[in-house]
Amino acid sequence: MNDSLRLLIIFIFFNSAIAMSQNDKIVLAIHGGAGTILKKNMTPEKEKAYHDKLTEALKAGYAVLQKGGTSLDAVEAAIVVMEDSPLFNAGKGSVFNSDGKNEMDAAIMDGSNLKAGAVAGVHTIKNPVKAARAVMEKSEHVMLIGEGAEKFAKEKSLEIVEPSYFYDDHRYQQYLKAKEKNKIEMDHTDSVKTKSKPDKHGTVGAVALDNYGNISAATSTGGMTNKKYGRVGDAPIIGAGTYANNKSCAVSCTGHGEFFIRAVVAHEISSLIEYKNLSVKEAAEKVILEKMVKMGGEGGAIVLDKNGNVSLPFNTEGMYRGYITIDGKIYTGIYKGD
Amino acid sequence: MNDSLRLLIIFIFFNSAIAMSQNDKIVLAIHGGAGTILKKNMTPEKEKAYHDKLTEALKAGYAVLQKGGTSLDAVEAAIVVMEDSPLFNAGKGSVFNSDGKNEMDAAIMDGSNLKAGAVAGVHTIKNPVKAARAVMEKSEHVMLIGEGAEKFAKEKSLEIVEPSYFYDDHRYQQYLKAKEKNKIEMDHTDSVKTKSKPDKHGTVGAVALDNYGNISAATSTGGMTNKKYGRVGDAPIIGAGTYANNKSCAVSCTGHGEFFIRAVVAHEISSLIEYKNLSVKEAAEKVILEKMVKMGGEGGAIVLDKNGNVSLPFNTEGMYRGYITIDGKIYTGIYKGD
Repeated sequence: MNDSLRLLIIFIFFNSAIAMSQNDKIVLAIHGGAGTILKKNMTPEKEKAYHDKLTEALKAGYAVLQKGGTSLDAVEAAIVVMEDSPLFNAGKGSVFNSDGKNEMDAAIMDGSNLKAGAVAGVHTIKNPVKAARAVMEKSEHVMLIGEGAEKFAKEKSLEIVEPSYFYDDHRYQQYLKAKEKNKIEMDHTDSVKTKSKPDKHGTVGAVALDNYGNISAATSTGGMTNKKYGRVGDAPIIGAGTYANNKSCAVSCTGHGEFFIRAVVAHEISSLIEYKNLSVKEAAEKVILEKMVKMGGEGGAIVLDKNGNVSLPFNTEGMYRGYITIDGKIYTGIYKGD
Repeated sequence: MNDSLRLLIIFIFFNSAIAMSQNDKIVLAIHGGAGTILKKNMTPEKEKAYHDKLTEALKAGYAVLQKGGTSLDAVEAAIVVMEDSPLFNAGKGSVFNSDGKNEMDAAIMDGSNLKAGAVAGVHTIKNPVKAARAVMEKSEHVMLIGEGAEKFAKEKSLEIVEPSYFYDDHRYQQYLKAKEKNKIEMDHTDSVKTKSKPDKHGTVGAVALDNYGNISAATSTGGMTNKKYGRVGDAPIIGAGTYANNKSCAVSCTGHGEFFIRAVVAHEISSLIEYKNLSVKEAAEKVILEKMVKMGGEGGAIVLDKNGNVSLPFNTEGMYRGYITIDGKIYTGIYKGD
């Protein structure tokens, strides 16, 4: 083999190696909730609707990144698509609380500077993730709740909608059934289940990596069907359901929020990466598949680091999820093994 | 030296060593807020009032532990004393928000089982720490906010008071001055300061170790003077202002809450102990005196582990604080170097 042939082979090898690593690099991952999502309860049409909407959300976030937008812009764009869809328990598809109202929470965090914003217990903001971002960028606070948060959103000219915007017949029937049984239910609930433990879970979330090497995370949720007393789950709690830090990872969780708050899940995954040198996959699986299972906390998480490594573990039957690589290849999944 | 004399000396040595280690073992630590607390702005009477009230709170918690009560009972008892005093920005002494109302937050966590409870944005509950505990023990939730939390507290027969109960002329004058300057202020605010950044901070907190080797933490706050929009600080956020885990430590924070939320301070201290094998002192100082200073987050924390090691670092001029040892010796302090 002469030298120029050898150089050519080396050149081809390096290029394909770069191309492969680019193929593998994830720039955006999303989830649309974890729970008892069983194939036998699905129709092919419904499955397709979920895959299509996840794909649309991924493409929306990817378009932002392609144009040189930030990871913050990308997670917001992906989440807005899911908030605007009745398929997911967030924004338009939010479930009803015990008063027959929709009560939503959201959070967003920028891993490059640890800035964060969150809203909880809001009823009239069309896109709670946008309100969370406004809190981060246009207030000196991190978390605003209830009427105060709505007043702030109005002042910042965010879109306010009538309660009827959130009305969805399927969700309302879920609520009436749950109320009848006087039981609190998570979002993707199979109403034939009778065990008292909530058996399905809500929330949408996104994590992204941009061209500048920065990662961000955001989460948005409509909470639990028939929930009472202004309950707040993990989604708007920085460190529990949402966290991003360039040093470690960006995380968005979905599941039985109380367990995720108590275990400070998102920050726990980050700490295992930062302080125990675990990989994204090792840290995410340790917390979701071991620690959460031991505690009894059903749910999942999406975790992404600034090198584009991703992990999407869940300890439930299914989790609506997907990711997109740097060259635009899309994966979406619903059930285990997808 | 004959053998029996040698044995006697060894016996005395071991007993005094045990006594010494008992002397050093801290069973309860508290804080009453950190901020620009300057000796020149204090009167001897006011200083004495603070030392006396901190001592009363420590004794209240200690009495619980002496009787074989849990660390959870002890932190609650200590905090109730401070909530019932107008000296601290919590319960009775809470500052006024921008609507001239008192808006309080509290959280409690049991390090033996990671159970936790929190309330945020409550106006009429006499002792928010009791409401947080009721959420932990009598609901299936961790965090309740606003009217829902108040409704829950009423149903659980917690003491509800008229808004006038929280009226304090000193706090109201603070509020009027802050409103005039249209500025948000933390609690121990020196109104002659003119810089726009809030310069003093609120909150009371306690961490305790009981006879069963379990640790707990609790925090309660009246927030910031003239605060708007239903702002929630770090106090009721599990992982930010409050956290307890037998594996690592119990933590209660005080300070500029937004920074404490963004850095997930309480869980960060815990992670440095659990995953980097730092001591309580090393971990607490690393986060409060290095990381928080770098971010610009003024405040402090009290940190206790299940061996009775304590650290009470703060990066402000002062922090109302104290601890009590297993044999009842009390320390209280206000300024740096106390």
